[in-house]
Amino acid sequence: MDGIGMTASPKQTELSLDMATLAAGYRSGALSVAEVAETVLARIDAAGDDRVWIARVDDEGLRARACDLDARGPEGLPLFGIPFAVKDNIDAEGLATTCACPAYARLPEASATAVRRLLDAGALLIGKTNLDQFATGLVGVRSPYGVPRNPFDPSVVPGGSSSGSAVAVSSGLVSFALGTDTAGSGRVPAGFNNIVGLKPTKGMIPTTGVVPACRSLDCVSVFALTVEDAVAACAVAAGHDAADPFSRTAPAGFDLRPGRPPERFRFGVPRADQLRFFGNAEAERLFAEAVARMETLGGTAVEFDFEPFAAAASLLYAGPWVAERTHALRAMLEQQPNAIHPVVRRIVEGGRGYSAVDAFDGLYKLETLRQRAMTAWTGFEVMLVPTSGTIYRVAEVESDPIGLNSNLGYYTNFVNLMDLSALAVPNGFQADGLPAGVTLIAPAWHDGWLAGLGAAWQRTMDLPLGATGARLPIPASAAPPAAAHPVLPIAVFGAHLSGMPLNGELLALGATLRGAVRTAPIYRLHALPGTPARPALERVESGGAPIEAEVWNIPTAAVGAFLARVPSPLAIGTVTLEDGSTVHGFVAEGIAVRHAEDVTHFGGWRGYVGSLKG
Amino acid sequence: MDGIGMTASPKQTELSLDMATLAAGYRSGALSVAEVAETVLARIDAAGDDRVWIARVDDEGLRARACDLDARGPEGLPLFGIPFAVKDNIDAEGLATTCACPAYARLPEASATAVRRLLDAGALLIGKTNLDQFATGLVGVRSPYGVPRNPFDPSVVPGGSSSGSAVAVSSGLVSFALGTDTAGSGRVPAGFNNIVGLKPTKGMIPTTGVVPACRSLDCVSVFALTVEDAVAACAVAAGHDAADPFSRTAPAGFDLRPGRPPERFRFGVPRADQLRFFGNAEAERLFAEAVARMETLGGTAVEFDFEPFAAAASLLYAGPWVAERTHALRAMLEQQPNAIHPVVRRIVEGGRGYSAVDAFDGLYKLETLRQRAMTAWTGFEVMLVPTSGTIYRVAEVESDPIGLNSNLGYYTNFVNLMDLSALAVPNGFQADGLPAGVTLIAPAWHDGWLAGLGAAWQRTMDLPLGATGARLPIPASAAPPAAAHPVLPIAVFGAHLSGMPLNGELLALGATLRGAVRTAPIYRLHALPGTPARPALERVESGGAPIEAEVWNIPTAAVGAFLARVPSPLAIGTVTLEDGSTVHGFVAEGIAVRHAEDVTHFGGWRGYVGSLKG
Repeated sequence: MDGIGMTASPKQTELSLDMATLAAGYRSGALSVAEVAETVLARIDAAGDDRVWIARVDDEGLRARACDLDARGPEGLPLFGIPFAVKDNIDAEGLATTCACPAYARLPEASATAVRRLLDAGALLIGKTNLDQFATGLVGVRSPYGVPRNPFDPSVVPGGSSSGSAVAVSSGLVSFALGTDTAGSGRVPAGFNNIVGLKPTKGMIPTTGVVPACRSLDCVSVFALTVEDAVAACAVAAGHDAADPFSRTAPAGFDLRPGRPPERFRFGVPRADQLRFFGNAEAERLFAEAVARMETLGGTAVEFDFEPFAAAASLLYAGPWVAERTHALRAMLEQQPNAIHPVVRRIVEGGRGYSAVDAFDGLYKLETLRQRAMTAWTGFEVMLVPTSGTIYRVAEVESDPIGLNSNLGYYTNFVNLMDLSALAVPNGFQADGLPAGVTLIAPAWHDGWLAGLGAAWQRTMDLPLGATGARLPIPASAAPPAAAHPVLPIAVFGAHLSGMPLNGELLALGATLRGAVRTAPIYRLHALPGTPARPALERVESGGAPIEAEVWNIPTAAVGAFLARVPSPLAIGTVTLEDGSTVHGFVAEGIAVRHAEDVTHFGGWRGYVGSLKG
Repeated sequence: MDGIGMTASPKQTELSLDMATLAAGYRSGALSVAEVAETVLARIDAAGDDRVWIARVDDEGLRARACDLDARGPEGLPLFGIPFAVKDNIDAEGLATTCACPAYARLPEASATAVRRLLDAGALLIGKTNLDQFATGLVGVRSPYGVPRNPFDPSVVPGGSSSGSAVAVSSGLVSFALGTDTAGSGRVPAGFNNIVGLKPTKGMIPTTGVVPACRSLDCVSVFALTVEDAVAACAVAAGHDAADPFSRTAPAGFDLRPGRPPERFRFGVPRADQLRFFGNAEAERLFAEAVARMETLGGTAVEFDFEPFAAAASLLYAGPWVAERTHALRAMLEQQPNAIHPVVRRIVEGGRGYSAVDAFDGLYKLETLRQRAMTAWTGFEVMLVPTSGTIYRVAEVESDPIGLNSNLGYYTNFVNLMDLSALAVPNGFQADGLPAGVTLIAPAWHDGWLAGLGAAWQRTMDLPLGATGARLPIPASAAPPAAAHPVLPIAVFGAHLSGMPLNGELLALGATLRGAVRTAPIYRLHALPGTPARPALERVESGGAPIEAEVWNIPTAAVGAFLARVPSPLAIGTVTLEDGSTVHGFVAEGIAVRHAEDVTHFGGWRGYVGSLKG
């Protein structure tokens, strides 16, 4: 399948713009940034009137930037030569910001912090993308610049508000694109375009230079073909910015990089009577398949009460938060109200009807719901929901612009209100060929864990990427970007493993799972006598085997508290992993294994413990 | 000085109600709870018409509770027999809650969570205290129940809104008292009564069962004679409560107990031109003395820009947060507006003038200020400010009830808006005998550090406690003030020993030598091959010897950085010392010693290294 009908050279037609493919091409010398720029220009030309772009970097400027990059080379530029698009409510120097409202257009003094960071990392800006005006909508049809063409079927909506950014990625015009996400604008379009939508923790990517929608909730989001690409772009754009009042500093131990998910975890699924598919049986089928697929990844489904989340979702538009939109557009509403899209204007003017007393009343209701909702996370580690319950045709939305839009927010609106992190990933296709997605949701600053699970999910699905027909690249061996906060990775082998009795000690210290690993085949595993049974790892000169382990990133400042509880004869030393790397981890004094049972043949502690139950 | 003119027995007259004194009395059998109850009753009787109480537990009920406690004994009750008072906007079962508005009075169905926890810990409830009506005020004169009598001078205000609670503690009627603190109501009265006011991190003590003032900002606070006592009560009352929408879970590693402050630290002092004493030269002199005194405690004064803090402070009453008070009293305002104190009503009705757009506008301004303000904490660890810039006479406040009240909030109003922790401590007396206080302020969840510094401060000052004439108790030897900065003792055997090449690593981490020791005679010492030579300790079943070591106290937070540098095959495990005790320390994997030289006969690493030089 090639959704964009190319007429250019085979190289241009076939080239996948995922970052691993581009980086490999640049590294080997098979590709230049100039060639990639020409490929992008040819594809944009071939796509024709797709309503994706509101403004583009002019061709000559783009070529000049590409040549500059080629001359400079990739050294120290994590996004060297990676083409990207920016939603047109985010400032990019040299291009007017319109928010899809021509009367609003103004030339920014500087790029938004996020855009500046991406450019500084070597990324190649292609242009500014269409959106639901002032980022108000989940449909992608509320724009005087037209409806961006959904590459799977031009009669269905592209999703919004980050419509153009999602289509640009899905159509293979750019490697990634920035969106914004207040109510779901960075997730719903991902679902409708078979791509990844990363909605990071609120405050992680600065909103300096972003035109506000609901300023207390707005997030910059990232669309990409793969989870790894979304994370790579997000990692560059993220980081505290004192100029953004809502910018936050990540907690110690935070790591955005996707790690391998734990072998066993629990995921929450809304109670069956609370799932809503709005009459779409195919969407319902696909979500049931997703639940089954998550179980093959080691998950155990846990039904939970979605009611507080749904109630919070409905607060967003039927509550005082609309007044944030009114605040953002107060000058437009006073001076040029007729320049605003009629549906957007109707919504935004609605915020005038609320008093400050109402605003605080809404805040109290939200906090009450949030307190109830957060107890859900004691029952599971991640929530799995459809990205949206269904998908609509453009004509349907035009006949009921607010009602159907509202349906699309059922699984998205609560996320920023409740300070959660979310990752939308593809979930296959309906019988009619339209894509559907699912979204993984976790508390704030769990983005790295979501990314790890999402990457595993994407590998399991192995769908074509977006509408490009390309497939997932083989993971690059290059070193992942460095961690932002000091952590000490520590390998655990027994009761500290995910789901085992002492795992809570790690979680309480703010540790995060980096991944499941195996040791080099130079160890034997012993079960120490006594209760509870504890494992002791013995390094041997011959006769060793690989042993299953998990590596946890423990905030360096919390390692002392962890070590204080490590009992004799165990110790924390150095462990060699299967790939030859070393990491700190549990070892034992030599004397420990003299009277212990050798359980090496189980391959790891889970196997041994399982055998005891059997 | 005996501010309350007792006529009772010497024991009742002299007994200090600080917790250390009471606990020692209960432990030794010299005191019973019944006797303490009688002491309290006699003092209340002697105090006469002090306007402290709105309601009291009836005498027979109090005596019965005291007898029950005596019969049960102190086992497992951290606040056994400790008399306390509760501000009358906090529910206590069996007593009406009035908020100092008789028309509002209602009998609660249950005690507030905080009160319930204190009672469950064995504390002895004496009664409900007077306040600025609906906790609106910092003066203590806005109550139909009269002005609680400031024990230092009845013509000056007691401070508010927790006026009765502060006077009850200062006058020696109770050991501690709960207040609430939205704008400074838990600090200003502490300053005006020469006592301690602990304003914990927002959400630490649940507000379930507390009548809201500004619900997003309200904190339950604690007044006591000593920092240790305030912390002891707070520790019992604190903890997550799912019934409170604003309740928070403390971060991992949080410890409320006062530790020893660091030997050197930096403290922030507002720029000289931003300090305001409202014409009170004595207050200015006392604050200058406080800065000098803080330097004797190891602090280095750092001037900072107070402007964003002052701007946030002014937002609280000249901004939309007043609408939270309107929200809290909306039923009263509709049904019985004339039952509200005229000054309070004027303030609370002001919240009606704000729209939801204004509310969010205020929120954005606050976040902007907060982001600016938080950079201040990169320059110092704690802020030192006057608790209030001056103190007023009742007659002065009556002639300008809002303006002078506002002056009293200059150093307090911003604290909850900016999510800070604060501790008000006594700072001596003006020439006219009126007390003055200072407040220590730090980010959220720094309460334990503030308590440690505040306790050291109080020991340095050694003032009479409140108006009681009692002095700081000598810390009980049974329970040494809990460890300051937590350390993990670690035994070292080689290059980390004093004077050896790697000893500087320990010093750089802030470690201190606990002492030279020897291990139990169950080890052998090996010199690992390679350069530099490193020792490996091997535990053996027979043939062991005692090995020389040093135990270093490493700050727990620095242990991770230390462990990160421990190379294979060394590890940190557990070592048994000569006296049979165990301590964490360097051990080695069993494989380590296979090809190493046994140097046990040197008795330790120094002997071995010396032999190489010889």
